[in-house]
Amino acid sequence: MTVEVLNTGTELLLGEVVNTHAAWFGKQLFPLGLRVSRQTTVPDGGAIREALSECFERADIVLMTGGLGPTTDDITREAVAGLLGIELVADDAVRRKIEAMVAERGHTMRERMLRQAMVPEGAVVLPNDNGSAPGLYLPMRSSPRSPHLFLLPGPPRELQPMFTESVLPVLRQLSGGQPARECRVYRIVGLGESAVEESVGLSLEKRGDLEVGYCARPNEVDLRLIGTREILDEVEPLVLNAVGSHLFSQKGENLEEWVVARLRKLGRKIATAESCSGGLLAHRLTNVPGASEVFTHGFVTYANEAKISGLGVPSSTLAMHGAVSEPVAMAMADGALEKSGADYALSLTGIAGPGGGSDDKPVGLVFIAIARRGKPTLCKRFRFPRDRETFKQLATQTALDMLRHELI
Amino acid sequence: MTVEVLNTGTELLLGEVVNTHAAWFGKQLFPLGLRVSRQTTVPDGGAIREALSECFERADIVLMTGGLGPTTDDITREAVAGLLGIELVADDAVRRKIEAMVAERGHTMRERMLRQAMVPEGAVVLPNDNGSAPGLYLPMRSSPRSPHLFLLPGPPRELQPMFTESVLPVLRQLSGGQPARECRVYRIVGLGESAVEESVGLSLEKRGDLEVGYCARPNEVDLRLIGTREILDEVEPLVLNAVGSHLFSQKGENLEEWVVARLRKLGRKIATAESCSGGLLAHRLTNVPGASEVFTHGFVTYANEAKISGLGVPSSTLAMHGAVSEPVAMAMADGALEKSGADYALSLTGIAGPGGGSDDKPVGLVFIAIARRGKPTLCKRFRFPRDRETFKQLATQTALDMLRHELI
Repeated sequence: MTVEVLNTGTELLLGEVVNTHAAWFGKQLFPLGLRVSRQTTVPDGGAIREALSECFERADIVLMTGGLGPTTDDITREAVAGLLGIELVADDAVRRKIEAMVAERGHTMRERMLRQAMVPEGAVVLPNDNGSAPGLYLPMRSSPRSPHLFLLPGPPRELQPMFTESVLPVLRQLSGGQPARECRVYRIVGLGESAVEESVGLSLEKRGDLEVGYCARPNEVDLRLIGTREILDEVEPLVLNAVGSHLFSQKGENLEEWVVARLRKLGRKIATAESCSGGLLAHRLTNVPGASEVFTHGFVTYANEAKISGLGVPSSTLAMHGAVSEPVAMAMADGALEKSGADYALSLTGIAGPGGGSDDKPVGLVFIAIARRGKPTLCKRFRFPRDRETFKQLATQTALDMLRHELI
Repeated sequence: MTVEVLNTGTELLLGEVVNTHAAWFGKQLFPLGLRVSRQTTVPDGGAIREALSECFERADIVLMTGGLGPTTDDITREAVAGLLGIELVADDAVRRKIEAMVAERGHTMRERMLRQAMVPEGAVVLPNDNGSAPGLYLPMRSSPRSPHLFLLPGPPRELQPMFTESVLPVLRQLSGGQPARECRVYRIVGLGESAVEESVGLSLEKRGDLEVGYCARPNEVDLRLIGTREILDEVEPLVLNAVGSHLFSQKGENLEEWVVARLRKLGRKIATAESCSGGLLAHRLTNVPGASEVFTHGFVTYANEAKISGLGVPSSTLAMHGAVSEPVAMAMADGALEKSGADYALSLTGIAGPGGGSDDKPVGLVFIAIARRGKPTLCKRFRFPRDRETFKQLATQTALDMLRHELI
């Protein structure tokens, strides 16, 4: 089955928004044995119809995004109906849902919003729990020939749940069951991409019966292996042996999800004391549903005064060593442990940049400490000389990994 | 001039790598008056030639990425030469540069690396200071008809400097100087996409001499106008009048950047007291370089005990009204103002979900308060019944907007 992706949106071609849909679809389709053979982006407007008609000629399945909203540049519904020679009809259930959503959010109902309730004849409505425009599925037709066509909303937070709930089940049926090859992803922290490649990837690539891929994020690498189940089972011990305790998940969860799940299982609690990471560590932990069971107190102590009053860091320690130092990191963690009554406390103090660095304490320097009930506090020194947001991501990832080592 | 982008790479379609080239090209081209009319991604292999030949028919300028490396799936050079009916010839200067680079890195010279020194006849070599494969430029031809064709390396760290140094100057010449049209983006908070369209967009769309677009994010809408400077100047008063104080920027900055800049200018400070948003508000503020001048204390008080000990919220208030209530939100903001000595304190308490809701206090309910030195504390009630991360984004965006209204 040939699959094509058609993204619409002038903002994608003007560069205001990076198109993440193409990559996301690719990942979702693979386990079904489906691959995207071509991805196209066109601006809102007349180009949509031309690009769509080309997709119709080539593809068995077309995943189309964008252009389903309420404004006049949202013309996907009209383009599809025109191409298939069918009418748009008002869908009462969709209209009622839009009206209910508008009322719930306390907005004013506008005539324009009802454009989103116009549905091509014969289309299956795919519910949108995160926005007003529903998705639409038009099964394959023979005359004129058209593929299985899925019209999906542009915003990822609307598209992704809809795809998982309503599109994947249909695609699973269309693809006819299990693919011959499987994909396994080993998620690794604390080892760089080239270290992963050297320790195990190169020898796997030589085999020839495996497809080996890597995906690197700040202090996190996915090693992706594609092959038959027998071959994947055969090489798995090599992978586990090579990456050792750097492997933290084979289930695709992120590090904060792993940490929160583990703390819940152990019945332990964590507190955070953040300077340079400015709340990102607390934010990451509280993104995980159920975090409230394990996370109770977070301190964002950006100023020295906050470190003193909020965490009891001695002003003499700050004066003697400076805020970015091992003794201050340790005093922050100890203070957070004491004030919160948690079992662990993580602290970070460093220089995110771009300003504030010196020869002695350059931009990117960070001290990360972990206080543990009944055990001595540990502190490590790192240097992440990167842009501000990457620095915060790397520092919090490394802090979570220090906690992970305590919890293994 | 019609511009198309053709990205090649199986990893882009498998979803291992997000394609950032398309957005990057769009941003670079707009100031030259050039726009990408279509972007296509195809996997490595035979599909490249087919997609390229379609681009040849439609475009005056083609920007092509990937497939220039040393491995057997890098077939861009061959596909181009085949399509144009020309030969690949060894380029001595490129060969010497590859040999020097390999020697400098202490690698072994492999025969296949010299594939990268094969250049289509008549191509201009574009130096690559960050990798081994050079870029190539083939000027437009009339028989067979071909566009101005730029072959560029896939890795962004190689492509972007090459584009800036070698491609932009050529494009600037081809586009013939200053663009006739400009792009203005009005960034709006507190008004939905349809409300923006109704209040001003529809009347602008009717004019016919303006291109009107919208891009919506959680509680933020961009209104994008493209036209001549004269027309944009003419309609600007209409836009400003219609969106009023909902407009916060015409410079593309985000709300936290606006708020931090404004606080710095006024010499005022902000503290945060977060329950349901779990540190995201502090994280957003501290993403802005220079935030340390205006943000000193953040409190992430997830548990009631943290609200009592950290912020001085009376336990009787918690017992009487519950943690998600107006009195608790106001007590949190007051406590944060007092403990921090800041000029403003924002607090949030709500139910992010998916669990924890009730009939009385459903998932998505949030109270946001702002305490102001020397003025009474304000509190507002909102409901954002969305997924957990969108809820946090909407709640913090709304809190920042409450602060913005104080600072105007």
